[in-house]
Amino acid sequence: MAIVLGDNRYGKAENRLVRIDREGSAGGEHRITDLTVSVSLSGDMSDTHLTGANDKVLATDTQKNTVFAFARDGIGEIEDFALRLARHFVSTQESIHAARVGVVAHPWERLRVGGRPAHHSFARSGAGTRTTRVTYDGERAWVLGGVEDLTVLNSTGSEFWGFPRDEYTTLAEVKDRILATAVSATWRYSVEETDWAHAHETALATLLDAFGGTHSQSLQQTLYAMGQAVLEAVPEIAEIRFALPNKHHFLVDLQPFGLDNPGEVFYAADRPYGLIEGTVLRDDAPPAGPAWS
Amino acid sequence: MAIVLGDNRYGKAENRLVRIDREGSAGGEHRITDLTVSVSLSGDMSDTHLTGANDKVLATDTQKNTVFAFARDGIGEIEDFALRLARHFVSTQESIHAARVGVVAHPWERLRVGGRPAHHSFARSGAGTRTTRVTYDGERAWVLGGVEDLTVLNSTGSEFWGFPRDEYTTLAEVKDRILATAVSATWRYSVEETDWAHAHETALATLLDAFGGTHSQSLQQTLYAMGQAVLEAVPEIAEIRFALPNKHHFLVDLQPFGLDNPGEVFYAADRPYGLIEGTVLRDDAPPAGPAWS
Amino acid sequence: MAIVLGDNRYGKAENRLVRIDREGSAGGEHRITDLTVSVSLSGDMSDTHLTGANDKVLATDTQKNTVFAFARDGIGEIEDFALRLARHFVSTQESIHAARVGVVAHPWERLRVGGRPAHHSFARSGAGTRTTRVTYDGERAWVLGGVEDLTVLNSTGSEFWGFPRDEYTTLAEVKDRILATAVSATWRYSVEETDWAHAHETALATLLDAFGGTHSQSLQQTLYAMGQAVLEAVPEIAEIRFALPNKHHFLVDLQPFGLDNPGEVFYAADRPYGLIEGTVLRDDAPPAGPAWS
Amino acid sequence: MAIVLGDNRYGKAENRLVRIDREGSAGGEHRITDLTVSVSLSGDMSDTHLTGANDKVLATDTQKNTVFAFARDGIGEIEDFALRLARHFVSTQESIHAARVGVVAHPWERLRVGGRPAHHSFARSGAGTRTTRVTYDGERAWVLGGVEDLTVLNSTGSEFWGFPRDEYTTLAEVKDRILATAVSATWRYSVEETDWAHAHETALATLLDAFGGTHSQSLQQTLYAMGQAVLEAVPEIAEIRFALPNKHHFLVDLQPFGLDNPGEVFYAADRPYGLIEGTVLRDDAPPAGPAWS
Repeated sequence: MAIVLGDNRYGKAENRLVRIDREGSAGGEHRITDLTVSVSLSGDMSDTHLTGANDKVLATDTQKNTVFAFARDGIGEIEDFALRLARHFVSTQESIHAARVGVVAHPWERLRVGGRPAHHSFARSGAGTRTTRVTYDGERAWVLGGVEDLTVLNSTGSEFWGFPRDEYTTLAEVKDRILATAVSATWRYSVEETDWAHAHETALATLLDAFGGTHSQSLQQTLYAMGQAVLEAVPEIAEIRFALPNKHHFLVDLQPFGLDNPGEVFYAADRPYGLIEGTVLRDDAPPAGPAWS
Repeated sequence: MAIVLGDNRYGKAENRLVRIDREGSAGGEHRITDLTVSVSLSGDMSDTHLTGANDKVLATDTQKNTVFAFARDGIGEIEDFALRLARHFVSTQESIHAARVGVVAHPWERLRVGGRPAHHSFARSGAGTRTTRVTYDGERAWVLGGVEDLTVLNSTGSEFWGFPRDEYTTLAEVKDRILATAVSATWRYSVEETDWAHAHETALATLLDAFGGTHSQSLQQTLYAMGQAVLEAVPEIAEIRFALPNKHHFLVDLQPFGLDNPGEVFYAADRPYGLIEGTVLRDDAPPAGPAWS
Repeated sequence: MAIVLGDNRYGKAENRLVRIDREGSAGGEHRITDLTVSVSLSGDMSDTHLTGANDKVLATDTQKNTVFAFARDGIGEIEDFALRLARHFVSTQESIHAARVGVVAHPWERLRVGGRPAHHSFARSGAGTRTTRVTYDGERAWVLGGVEDLTVLNSTGSEFWGFPRDEYTTLAEVKDRILATAVSATWRYSVEETDWAHAHETALATLLDAFGGTHSQSLQQTLYAMGQAVLEAVPEIAEIRFALPNKHHFLVDLQPFGLDNPGEVFYAADRPYGLIEGTVLRDDAPPAGPAWS
Repeated sequence: MAIVLGDNRYGKAENRLVRIDREGSAGGEHRITDLTVSVSLSGDMSDTHLTGANDKVLATDTQKNTVFAFARDGIGEIEDFALRLARHFVSTQESIHAARVGVVAHPWERLRVGGRPAHHSFARSGAGTRTTRVTYDGERAWVLGGVEDLTVLNSTGSEFWGFPRDEYTTLAEVKDRILATAVSATWRYSVEETDWAHAHETALATLLDAFGGTHSQSLQQTLYAMGQAVLEAVPEIAEIRFALPNKHHFLVDLQPFGLDNPGEVFYAADRPYGLIEGTVLRDDAPPAGPAWS
């Protein structure tokens, strides 16, 4: 028996990059891009771990510098920016065999000033954060897209009944409940190049439409409906994965106070919460390779 | 010398109340109200602290129940809901001399489903949370309004220079910088009754307009401009207090990489941060009493 | 009516300062001091707010530099470090009339390596964070001490009964419950100079002893017992303020599963929570001045 | 092309379970066990996703009840508790093919009251949280152990030099720096039964000893040293995975203030941070199966 080094990677996480495009819009207004960029590299790192030799370690400080320097020429779509960075690291450092670049894009909205869209003033908006993660291995790239921090709620159109009852089951069946979740969705593109903005917008709008439009027997059913709709709407997407916390809203029992409660007053619970995870994919989806690892 | 009991209060904090109005809107659509309600009571509590007698303690569990029961009849504007609750506690319990009720209103936006505004589907939005805090002492009420979680940014129109230089000063003067802050503003109404929704909307819109419209020499100057504008726009507001973290965005030095950086690539720092706090008020503002304590 | 500037202050918050004393201990071991330091200054700031003139603004960047530079000569007790900084700002800048310096001291424990106390290796410990806040107005200083992040629990010796029952009361009386809280305590010293380390250790040990040693009818009673004990043990402390969230642990009803539950299985709830706030002080405590503002 | 359901699971996350053993210790003192338990089940869930039929869904509420009911008989070591739960779900529900149970054990220390170890009083301690995750597929179980929230620091004995310099490299080489990280370690046992407490304590103590005892050229080298030491000390562990954020402490440049800084005054940065991930394993480790998925 010997002890050996297994999978490993290293990088600089959570580089907070903001770029101002000073002639970013048609009317000369500023445009803001606000990203958190994380880089992770892997390759021939045995010496570093075993002997402390660092001649194959691209310092994480250098990775950080590279992120900011690459932003000088413009960022463009986050998927393209991640691709540029990932390809750079692998192609310029012999010891690096694969690079992964993750980007979270924090959304801002243009303020109105004096009754008109502002020239250079913005407010952070909170409705859904666009994400990407690109993996490049020297030959090809795998591109993930996604959305985080997207909390949605249906105030009716959700049931939950017909589940098995064992000795630990006390839950009542319900034909009308609140269904709420914070959508965390990640999808895998089968292409390395496309109109990323259009694909993302279509996926997001379709997902929301399916969430609101599905009369649901369970959060699982809603998950599948969202996934199916996205795959039907965006041909470049091969697979989509969801993690959906069931943000429970419990009807408050007002009977002790002589009051009824016809689906109006709820208590929003923090923990515990249901957690529904699932994948929807095309049956001819190409292999995922290292995209998710 | 003796040891004595000083100021004290007790209550139930962070009751997470969600109400669905099932015929809430003109077209019969559902409407959602999502609140975090905190109650705090004070009165004749010496026995409780000194001897453990609880006959003057309105259990915090009872306070929680009251919040949910009061929501049964509808919530209305959060300032009115807080007033109803505060008056209830003081008027029904002889031992309670003052009540404070704080409410945070979490904003939601109606989704679009099938191309139209949804009937019962919503997404959490993140642009500014409305708050109130009401104090009632058995005779009169003090009402605070406010906004939290409102992160705003000007990508130009901000300078900072002319400050004194002592032996610890290294900061360069700058004629063009990013100015960003997470606005936490609380204002004091001089009335106990008004069109709260209109007052809040006017204050918020005015504040944002002033943020974007002020060419700024310092975050202090921007603070005052926002406060002045709100007071000019909303006659019911006597005083406004701000806590404004200066969310620093540092221009990245790209010279080591042979690149210039004409105000385009920034690093968004977490800590430390400047913190600017200030009050703007009318010189004839009525006394604040216990409103802020 | 005119609009005017009210109370205001500005500063650099959350400077993360770590100092290594390389011959810090008797045996030559390293010693670590890990602080978060926040500075806040006030004075003659009307011009800055009203006209944008910055000649009276000590840049918050300069404040940060001062914190780090002052650490070069050693930090000592955090109360003394805060006093040195506060006095410096007021005495060197004519426009600054008062300074407040807050310090949070993050605790570390020495690791054991090879069976012996390590020379230069440490682990963060989590049991209670020491805090101070000093206010200096050019003539005298007010010193607060305190502790945060100190979560404690009694698994018995706590009752809650005898409280009034109104129409919204459903809580059952209980003669044996879990009592748990996250102690946030801040005390005011009546002196500007003492053996701060000894005073802090005595206050903390006394507080914990009183928490564990008090058979409690309410968290209010426990609060008072802790405050009284601290004041009796530390003559330099004039007043102590507590904010004590009642971290509810609810006995789980196991009857549906044919099981009893004699005070053994609990559910730890997040929200809502009781919040008990109170002050215990000497009746001859000197005026607090701006210590708490 | 068809759209299909891929991997999926569902469960109740973050059940906050506290158990008091009232005759837990030799001297009759109480003992506290404070856990966060998360359950995740997978099986034949196509109908649920595709048609909304719930007859194969063990409600997450039932899962929660089961966790609390199982605690009635005592919890024991968290690995055993997780095994009991996982086996229960798979063996009692035909539709459930695999169960995963994760447990986080929040540490408490016994207080001293009146100079002696307290009978029933505790304080939360923060130095390292024990974790487990068990996967059971109806035939065998995979047991992971681990530790979280373990922040450690060496104030010397760490170097970083000899790394390649490309056009984006500005980092200076350094022969003496602070090395700090928040250890997140997860190890895979090759057994389903052992003295879990002893194995965990040995792994943790060995890991800390290796952290402090390794003169390090990089965090990678320290990672490997910790992994190797754990594998040598605990024969039941087949593999260990680390995620180690490099919590940067930057030496502050005090030259502008006429001061030197011989490794004494540091700035602790939040973001970005290096992130070093790696696996150390035995070359004859049994297959991991679904342990990590």
